Amino acid sequence: MYRLYHYPLSPFSRKVRLVLGEKRLDTELVEERYWEQDADFLRRNPAGKVPVLRIGGRFYSDSGAICEYLEEVAPQPPLMPQGAEARYEVRRLVAWFDDKFHAEVTAKLLGERIFRKVQGTGYPDSANVKSGARAIKHHIDYMAWLLDQRRWLAGNEMTLADFAAAAHLSCLDYISDVDWHRSDVVKDWYAKIKSRPAFRSILADQIPGFPQPAHYADLDF
Amino acid sequence: MYRLYHYPLSPFSRKVRLVLGEKRLDTELVEERYWEQDADFLRRNPAGKVPVLRIGGRFYSDSGAICEYLEEVAPQPPLMPQGAEARYEVRRLVAWFDDKFHAEVTAKLLGERIFRKVQGTGYPDSANVKSGARAIKHHIDYMAWLLDQRRWLAGNEMTLADFAAAAHLSCLDYISDVDWHRSDVVKDWYAKIKSRPAFRSILADQIPGFPQPAHYADLDF
Repeated sequence: MYRLYHYPLSPFSRKVRLVLGEKRLDTELVEERYWEQDADFLRRNPAGKVPVLRIGGRFYSDSGAICEYLEEVAPQPPLMPQGAEARYEVRRLVAWFDDKFHAEVTAKLLGERIFRKVQGTGYPDSANVKSGARAIKHHIDYMAWLLDQRRWLAGNEMTLADFAAAAHLSCLDYISDVDWHRSDVVKDWYAKIKSRPAFRSILADQIPGFPQPAHYADLDF
Repeated sequence: MYRLYHYPLSPFSRKVRLVLGEKRLDTELVEERYWEQDADFLRRNPAGKVPVLRIGGRFYSDSGAICEYLEEVAPQPPLMPQGAEARYEVRRLVAWFDDKFHAEVTAKLLGERIFRKVQGTGYPDSANVKSGARAIKHHIDYMAWLLDQRRWLAGNEMTLADFAAAAHLSCLDYISDVDWHRSDVVKDWYAKIKSRPAFRSILADQIPGFPQPAHYADLDF
């Protein structure tokens, strides 16, 4: 039995949850208020971040390293394509979302609107919120440009890149910060990924004090 | 012929330069003032970061994706070990240095002392510098703890994890921000990696306005 220490609105946790679900690796979820830096949690992961995956007695941290590891030990169904060029493109896009999108959008919208309140670090900074709201438009346009040429973000197969992107967008959708009218191809892509069984637990997430908007879990949004 | 668009004191560029050198992939270096967001550069890499590697007519961005790609297309000498557990440990540590060490140390010391001046974004923030100077001690202690159990950072073979760490430390050593007296095993590890042929071009780097300290290129530092 796997155990994942996670936080419901952490995009890095969600990416790993999606990979675990897609590979049908039965996993117990344990919510971790990682910012409290509890001593037990730091012993499991000296980097002090979520997610942390426990398999047997071993602990695995860093969502990127975890996903590559799961792909190697549980290759079915594959979430990395064959061929060095195609694999490069997946890794480039995972980094795009986990670094660039995270810094420009997720940290600015989710970070200001939710984490400041949950972690007790003050009021939202409206300049950051505005900057995130501007940046997400460019990112959705970039996704639309990719999806005009491909069925999935990194090619014609669903890969880790789609899960990285969907992990961020689903967190932002929880706070109604995604404008699904901006691009039909991006909306269609999200509808496809949202309807996968692996997405169910993510659609059931509830954050105390921040009720789910009605469209969030609706497959016909 | 490969061409790498890089910046001399970018740790991400240095990591890729070390991998290219170790694999004896002959590469032309082109210095890129990436923060000026030149239109040609953005066309090569919409993320607007260095390094960008050109192979034939194709452009590759994101240092992590580039290193995994090079490992797949030029596997000799290997910089990733065999076995999923060992590979996980390499990827965890690469992320440790490129995310955590970068945010807590490199961005605070190099970012404040050098990039503010070079990029014209104001005076160093002394609180950041102090925080970086404190954090690097903990990171050196963590490296020492790893190196007490292993010959290299991720195991008994030299891997990408060593190059990621050496890339950051060499940038900080250029501004004399590494206390080599803190740990003998860390100093011995750096002496081993510094003496590799792949390191030579890094030891020859010169930043206008910031002369090399005498110990920087000295193999007997």
